[in-house]
Amino acid sequence: MRAAEGGAHECGGQHISGAERLLREEYLEDIAKKMIQRALSHSRGKADFINLTIEMVKDEAIQEVPLLPITTCPVDSVDSGRKAAEKLLLSAGITQKAVKQAFYELDHLQTSMRGAMLIDMITGNRLDALAERGVRVSRMDIANEKDFCDWLTRQGLENIHVREALVLAAKVAAAPQIIAELCWSDDPDYVTGYVTARKRYHRITKLKEIGDWQGGRVFFVKSDSDIVELMQYLQYQPVLVTANEEMIR
Amino acid sequence: MRAAEGGAHECGGQHISGAERLLREEYLEDIAKKMIQRALSHSRGKADFINLTIEMVKDEAIQEVPLLPITTCPVDSVDSGRKAAEKLLLSAGITQKAVKQAFYELDHLQTSMRGAMLIDMITGNRLDALAERGVRVSRMDIANEKDFCDWLTRQGLENIHVREALVLAAKVAAAPQIIAELCWSDDPDYVTGYVTARKRYHRITKLKEIGDWQGGRVFFVKSDSDIVELMQYLQYQPVLVTANEEMIR
Repeated sequence: MRAAEGGAHECGGQHISGAERLLREEYLEDIAKKMIQRALSHSRGKADFINLTIEMVKDEAIQEVPLLPITTCPVDSVDSGRKAAEKLLLSAGITQKAVKQAFYELDHLQTSMRGAMLIDMITGNRLDALAERGVRVSRMDIANEKDFCDWLTRQGLENIHVREALVLAAKVAAAPQIIAELCWSDDPDYVTGYVTARKRYHRITKLKEIGDWQGGRVFFVKSDSDIVELMQYLQYQPVLVTANEEMIR
Repeated sequence: MRAAEGGAHECGGQHISGAERLLREEYLEDIAKKMIQRALSHSRGKADFINLTIEMVKDEAIQEVPLLPITTCPVDSVDSGRKAAEKLLLSAGITQKAVKQAFYELDHLQTSMRGAMLIDMITGNRLDALAERGVRVSRMDIANEKDFCDWLTRQGLENIHVREALVLAAKVAAAPQIIAELCWSDDPDYVTGYVTARKRYHRITKLKEIGDWQGGRVFFVKSDSDIVELMQYLQYQPVLVTANEEMIR
């Protein structure tokens, strides 16, 4: 589902909400209904354009990838948050130059991104040609939603941002070409962001100021990666994020 | 809503089902749910691709057009049905040549059409450049659904084909450039078709053989019409089909 205000995204509308699910057929209708409800009552505004696409995926086409463990890094300012993010990214092998470039790109968005930027982990160069649209990560979901939600609740993380971001981050982290991810939300009320690095999801409690409508994602990519193959995986490979029993119970 | 089997329409999928509504916001979620149900349980097959687009329309942009009265012409063969259709079209001023061309086009579709063909009422030439996709008539609904359904039920016509076709035919008939319409369904179980001519909707009980998967629509257009303006109206003008109180009560 993708929703915008002021017309469709492709006609200049402002992005309001997006969501991806991978479901058994019997849940389709109810989840579609909930997605529409959400687009019509989002903190970013009320959508006047909603597009819902449903595609069948065969069971055997689905790839399982592991859920990432969560660490929370509490900070009291955007500055401390960004320093913490930088440290995590450097420790994963991203160059200072590429980290700087990522923050620069995220701070200079003209509009909120529907998708993510691919940035070379060494040079900091943008690798996708999708401008402010970005690469949309699609076709993923959590394998056992109830256990997953219970696990999040036990950690005090029962909000939809964390739920969706964890699923996306797990798919992204499973791409062999991607070394790390940096993200904060476009929801003006939600300032926590995250860095995924070394197979761990690091929540950082402040990466932007409250009231800021810009948000986006950067994937740091190994130099000389096959970008076509990577985009194919991110956009089209159906992925079910599966928790390690010991981790989640 | 549009649904296909074997992938999206634009990727070669076979068209399964399509529907258009114009609703108050409070009905959105339930109708979306019903549309998905329908795409998954259609007599033409089970969709594996469904696209649902929701767009806000301002009340003041909506044009009211009159509901057409219905006549039923019972026939016992495709041949008699087509003769009846031809007679109605000729009486509306369509040339024999254009009528023949319309039947030829509908009988030689390679695949079922999502939209309609525009055909010149004099020369029989095809006026749109949309091939087997056709012009999709969109953004229309009935003003008072309950009275409309009761009226149909009193005439023994309480099926979804008639309901949707009447709404579409009323929008089409209100276009000053269109003189008549000829249509039969792509539903293999539904052989009744219709001709709209001289502000009346003529049901003809057999226009194709049972089990035939091809169906389509032809709009007969006045020569020298502004095709761009006509396509704009058919595709984008929100229309509410409004019954004359005397007719429907």
